[in-house]
Amino acid sequence: MPATVIDITASLDGFVAGPDASVEHPLGRGGERLHEWAYDSAAWRARHGETGGETGVDDEAIREQITGMGAVVMGRRMFSGGSGPWEDDPMADGWWGDEPPFGVPVFVVTHHRRAPLEKGGTTFVFVTDGVEAAHAQARTAAGERNISVGGGADVVQQLLAAGLVDKLRLHVAPILLGDGVRLFERLDPGRLRFEPQRVVHSPRATHVHYLVHR
Amino acid sequence: MPATVIDITASLDGFVAGPDASVEHPLGRGGERLHEWAYDSAAWRARHGETGGETGVDDEAIREQITGMGAVVMGRRMFSGGSGPWEDDPMADGWWGDEPPFGVPVFVVTHHRRAPLEKGGTTFVFVTDGVEAAHAQARTAAGERNISVGGGADVVQQLLAAGLVDKLRLHVAPILLGDGVRLFERLDPGRLRFEPQRVVHSPRATHVHYLVHR
Repeated sequence: MPATVIDITASLDGFVAGPDASVEHPLGRGGERLHEWAYDSAAWRARHGETGGETGVDDEAIREQITGMGAVVMGRRMFSGGSGPWEDDPMADGWWGDEPPFGVPVFVVTHHRRAPLEKGGTTFVFVTDGVEAAHAQARTAAGERNISVGGGADVVQQLLAAGLVDKLRLHVAPILLGDGVRLFERLDPGRLRFEPQRVVHSPRATHVHYLVHR
Repeated sequence: MPATVIDITASLDGFVAGPDASVEHPLGRGGERLHEWAYDSAAWRARHGETGGETGVDDEAIREQITGMGAVVMGRRMFSGGSGPWEDDPMADGWWGDEPPFGVPVFVVTHHRRAPLEKGGTTFVFVTDGVEAAHAQARTAAGERNISVGGGADVVQQLLAAGLVDKLRLHVAPILLGDGVRLFERLDPGRLRFEPQRVVHSPRATHVHYLVHR
């Protein structure tokens, strides 16, 4: 049964980006430290066209994210910098370069219409009628494989609120950010139940898998 | 080497008590769900004078907290309901009944002077010159054993900020509270580093042990 799986990294104090996030510093002040657990892993390096790297728990966490992935849903700011019209966005082609590390269709939730964008083996499709519509398109595209959701917090919250998430793989970086973008906000506490399914850790992160019940 | 160890339970969204905490509902709205992982365990029941109960990961988490404990530091509201003068506090003798489950000296951080209180095998000592003073007294009382800190969030934050914590055992209940008392606040993000040391889980909680570096 194909699942919708969130993979997201938060600080110990619950932030997915630090304070003062901007086009220049999309992860906010100190936020690049969130993902230090990933950068040296063999799977991350391979995904970004590099060789070598570490194996182990953190590497395995990346591999699990990629395995079985048939489509991606992401927020506008995870694709590029802005939130206004595309013609005003200096990052209109996205953060992901000419060889985005997806290789499956990516559905970008945005308020601004735009034709699909092909980059390497990845097609970005821009969906303007909301997260649920993006999820439905991703469902069709993914077929028997999983839908992967990596952020931002807004998209994650909307999918959780809509009852569309089967699994949350929460990667907790053992740092404090103090302020920034919170992962869990604007959710009805009574409507979601999480069930810990698996936990592993390295010195750089804990990786907690939750089944999501609603 | 005797350590100062925090054992505290937080929700997935980082709260140690829900909204609208009061003397009647010290854990706030929904907050009693935080500790559901503990109530059925054999160690919890034994600590509260009952027999039976479950063994396993959650039970072990309680046992670890008790083992090697030589003194406790807690905040005023974890001892009783109020924060004003004792004579105005309907819970002046505390939540803990005639047989408090500590059996070691407990140092209560408060703004209001009061003579020590003996209950069962537990002596509560009221410390009015701050968290660091309470910690120093606990250090002397604990000798070669550990200082256990169970909350509230204020005391935890002050001890972390003062660099007096060696280990954080964070018990994460897989629920959202949406609002309430946050565990991590008012801390300087750059001054603390946490290192995951061990993680285990049951369907009811994840138990994450961090070494705390400063």
